Amino acid sequence: MYGIQSARQTGFGIMGGDRRQLYLARAMQEEGCKVYVSCLENAPCTAGLPQVGLHQLAESCQVVLFPLPATRDGRYLNTPLSNLEIWLDDDFAQLFVGKQVFGGMMDKLKASSPLWQSVDCRDYYAREELVTGNAFLTAEGAVGLAVQEYEGSLGGARCLVTGFGRIGKALCGMLRGMGAQVFCSARKAADLTAVRALGCQPLEYSQLAQPFQVLFNTVPAQVLGAEVLARQRQDSLLIELASAPGGIDLEAAGSLGLRVLPAPSLPGRMSPKASGELIKETVFRMLEEG
Amino acid sequence: MYGIQSARQTGFGIMGGDRRQLYLARAMQEEGCKVYVSCLENAPCTAGLPQVGLHQLAESCQVVLFPLPATRDGRYLNTPLSNLEIWLDDDFAQLFVGKQVFGGMMDKLKASSPLWQSVDCRDYYAREELVTGNAFLTAEGAVGLAVQEYEGSLGGARCLVTGFGRIGKALCGMLRGMGAQVFCSARKAADLTAVRALGCQPLEYSQLAQPFQVLFNTVPAQVLGAEVLARQRQDSLLIELASAPGGIDLEAAGSLGLRVLPAPSLPGRMSPKASGELIKETVFRMLEEG
Amino acid sequence: MYGIQSARQTGFGIMGGDRRQLYLARAMQEEGCKVYVSCLENAPCTAGLPQVGLHQLAESCQVVLFPLPATRDGRYLNTPLSNLEIWLDDDFAQLFVGKQVFGGMMDKLKASSPLWQSVDCRDYYAREELVTGNAFLTAEGAVGLAVQEYEGSLGGARCLVTGFGRIGKALCGMLRGMGAQVFCSARKAADLTAVRALGCQPLEYSQLAQPFQVLFNTVPAQVLGAEVLARQRQDSLLIELASAPGGIDLEAAGSLGLRVLPAPSLPGRMSPKASGELIKETVFRMLEEG
Amino acid sequence: MYGIQSARQTGFGIMGGDRRQLYLARAMQEEGCKVYVSCLENAPCTAGLPQVGLHQLAESCQVVLFPLPATRDGRYLNTPLSNLEIWLDDDFAQLFVGKQVFGGMMDKLKASSPLWQSVDCRDYYAREELVTGNAFLTAEGAVGLAVQEYEGSLGGARCLVTGFGRIGKALCGMLRGMGAQVFCSARKAADLTAVRALGCQPLEYSQLAQPFQVLFNTVPAQVLGAEVLARQRQDSLLIELASAPGGIDLEAAGSLGLRVLPAPSLPGRMSPKASGELIKETVFRMLEEG
Repeated sequence: MYGIQSARQTGFGIMGGDRRQLYLARAMQEEGCKVYVSCLENAPCTAGLPQVGLHQLAESCQVVLFPLPATRDGRYLNTPLSNLEIWLDDDFAQLFVGKQVFGGMMDKLKASSPLWQSVDCRDYYAREELVTGNAFLTAEGAVGLAVQEYEGSLGGARCLVTGFGRIGKALCGMLRGMGAQVFCSARKAADLTAVRALGCQPLEYSQLAQPFQVLFNTVPAQVLGAEVLARQRQDSLLIELASAPGGIDLEAAGSLGLRVLPAPSLPGRMSPKASGELIKETVFRMLEEG
Repeated sequence: MYGIQSARQTGFGIMGGDRRQLYLARAMQEEGCKVYVSCLENAPCTAGLPQVGLHQLAESCQVVLFPLPATRDGRYLNTPLSNLEIWLDDDFAQLFVGKQVFGGMMDKLKASSPLWQSVDCRDYYAREELVTGNAFLTAEGAVGLAVQEYEGSLGGARCLVTGFGRIGKALCGMLRGMGAQVFCSARKAADLTAVRALGCQPLEYSQLAQPFQVLFNTVPAQVLGAEVLARQRQDSLLIELASAPGGIDLEAAGSLGLRVLPAPSLPGRMSPKASGELIKETVFRMLEEG
Repeated sequence: MYGIQSARQTGFGIMGGDRRQLYLARAMQEEGCKVYVSCLENAPCTAGLPQVGLHQLAESCQVVLFPLPATRDGRYLNTPLSNLEIWLDDDFAQLFVGKQVFGGMMDKLKASSPLWQSVDCRDYYAREELVTGNAFLTAEGAVGLAVQEYEGSLGGARCLVTGFGRIGKALCGMLRGMGAQVFCSARKAADLTAVRALGCQPLEYSQLAQPFQVLFNTVPAQVLGAEVLARQRQDSLLIELASAPGGIDLEAAGSLGLRVLPAPSLPGRMSPKASGELIKETVFRMLEEG
Repeated sequence: MYGIQSARQTGFGIMGGDRRQLYLARAMQEEGCKVYVSCLENAPCTAGLPQVGLHQLAESCQVVLFPLPATRDGRYLNTPLSNLEIWLDDDFAQLFVGKQVFGGMMDKLKASSPLWQSVDCRDYYAREELVTGNAFLTAEGAVGLAVQEYEGSLGGARCLVTGFGRIGKALCGMLRGMGAQVFCSARKAADLTAVRALGCQPLEYSQLAQPFQVLFNTVPAQVLGAEVLARQRQDSLLIELASAPGGIDLEAAGSLGLRVLPAPSLPGRMSPKASGELIKETVFRMLEEG
């Protein structure tokens, strides 16, 4: 693996992805690193960032940063801000042999060519600091969505958070900070103890069938079923933060006329600058650790 | 003035305005009051609310609720959710003689006909509980806007709030609750003392020329001038919460390429349900007080 | 009145009082002022502070700082950290003619001799920044007392704050910050609105007869009477923050076996350093304003 | 193991310990359980609690609760509120054969006689909900101590928390809730990310040599050494929350004249009621789980 010093000198190649990659590039540039970007030609405000072609980027840089996720379908690089379609084949992989490659959720990319076996690939999305940072960004985005979409106010509202994992914890704190009455369901006794000590109302999953105003689901298992949904008002708002199929019974919600807001990928959508900087810090730390 | 009991029985006429009026109607209905609405035919979800014409409403109800503001130009009633244009003339005023009329910022309405002299008009917007409640709704909306529009995160960000009035106070608390580093400028020594005790950084107005990430202005006098703006990064965000002309030097911001978000009327736009309920509570209290 | 510059040069005489005066002296010394102290010979850690006699102090300094309160009984200077008894007579007053004198609650002192009419006396305790700062110190002290004396925990506890003045507001925020479930009673509708928006439970005074775990009274009128007290558990704790006779029915509390903690003068007792610094800042500002 | 139902009926024997055991007994009694206490004769307020002798307790109850810790020296039961000395020998152990015994840190007790091998002993102190709850009680107690002992105010003060484990996390939140400027040191990158997102200042351990006003150590390794201590003011306060030998260089602190407050066992000392209730909940959950 390249050390941080040599990486800074030889330059970073940032390829594809959304605005997070753009801010990642800027953040590295601000720290004095040489940076090249590719497949970001439709991004806003790229002044001052040298945009190069795929081959030039691969030639110029020893360290290459793929987006999060690197690929969605395993066949093309994830390049939402480019008109180019980058086919993931042996030719593509060949460009990176001998280089240091970082990306998020790299498994599908690595399955696209056997040549990736001989490339030093690292997944920054597996790092705990990135997962932790993303949890806070997700919680913040969820609060922003709720303010925007719920027609009442969070201040004084009865808000439910299901789950007390990283996102649930962060949400409880922020909602309380906004003046909400926060209820949080958890399975583990230690979590219920913590919820109570933080000034929120701990709930077992069997106690959810009561009216709330905004309900945030963070649990990837159906915890907000028909019985719970039947107790909610028409003007309540449900926000789904867990990955598909989520924890809200969509069919029941639909037949009850309840509004469910799917909220995937909040860090990238709502906080691309914070996400990009988080990726930069994580990658730098990985390079430092060697 | 009608007491709350007789008002509940004779019914409330709710006329014009935005979704706040709709939620006001619903909130009254939920408390068992008879309610008629008029000039809200383009509002969403009016099922169950009796929509009547202007004359029918005036005939049926002893207490009538005009919107906030009752009129924008002094010539027409403020009816953004209606195709009707209600001309403010003597004929219109005549309909309300002998009734109890509530509305927000009523001066322009009252100037539209001498007949309003003989109508018992009350301005709910002059009540302190409404102003206080609106300040919290404004602060909440501003936080939601910042989450939505600022590309970084509030968590850990350097946020400036100018002014420590009702809105400034509420904003300081909520931003801190979201994990921001909050700086607040104020003129009065007692305010600076309070800012510090709340864990925010107190600043004199002469100390604002330093970089922040999100800047919220609540002061209706130009406190964020060229010198302060020159110290801000391109990706910072300025949110103007004060009424026109506000406190941000827009010309300087424009030439520096800084982004300024005007944010008028946040309670009505972001929290119509909370606003409508606040109006209901205020009007009920006014009726109780007699 | 002396300007701040000449006061700094001629020196400050600090006379009597408790540890607040000691920290006031230190804070002035740290800012480079010449300082003399008198009647503080029993204070701890006076190393480096020139202790002088009454006459020497009056001769050396143009600006003299009496304690808060300057006198308790109107007959002697308030000197709890001294063996001396300073009789407030004409001879004493004569020493300060032509000087600038600051103190807290100066009325009784000024009544002790007609000569005080010709002395420029200012009361720093009348300044809003000092009252505001003291309110936060009082709230902080009350939280500290509650942690120390209540055998349960504040985290998750039902805490009542009566009154939403300066101290009540500060207490609500801090208790919430400690994880308590905060209830707050107030008379004004605007206060109840604010209490709710801050995430606390607003209560009318007629709704207090329910069990709480810790009850903080800030209202100088009997709001916690027999009916309310009868609903409290034996192991609840009542803290009286209002000045005598306070708001708790002590007789009823006694016969019910409830524990009432009188908590006067918390800033001076629990936060003498913060109090002394607050006095310094206030006095400096008064000198600057002239 | 006895189920919770049969345990409730046969009764709980509560033996030795401090006021936590007393509140444990009361909490069980309030839930309708039969309860006997022993070796608590010097406890306050034992009215209504049947005090029995050692043998009677062992005979009457199927479930026995020893204190936390059950023994300090491995030779006597931990009975600070009793005049009796209970020698831990085979005779003592024999009394509990066939019973269900709960206690805290049971290893030393079990080493006192081979008969304990045939007793069903459970350690409630090993349960995560108890450790979590104790962390919040410790943090709360530490805040209370700081308010009481630090002569300045927490509001606005620069407070350092070393370590971001359970206690550190809880402390950061509470101190921030009291209005402090919170700095927190941690080793893990994910912790530093979380500290920042919560609005506190993250610090590496190499960055601690700067002045703070109150320093809370939660790390059981010397992180506050001479170099850091040399930067602290005389009137700063250090609170040691880690178990011996703690993280503060006591020798350096002594020679610098800095005040170090050892703060062991805060839950038992400052929050015996909350601690006793936490033990009750934990034991009940263990009985339910079987």
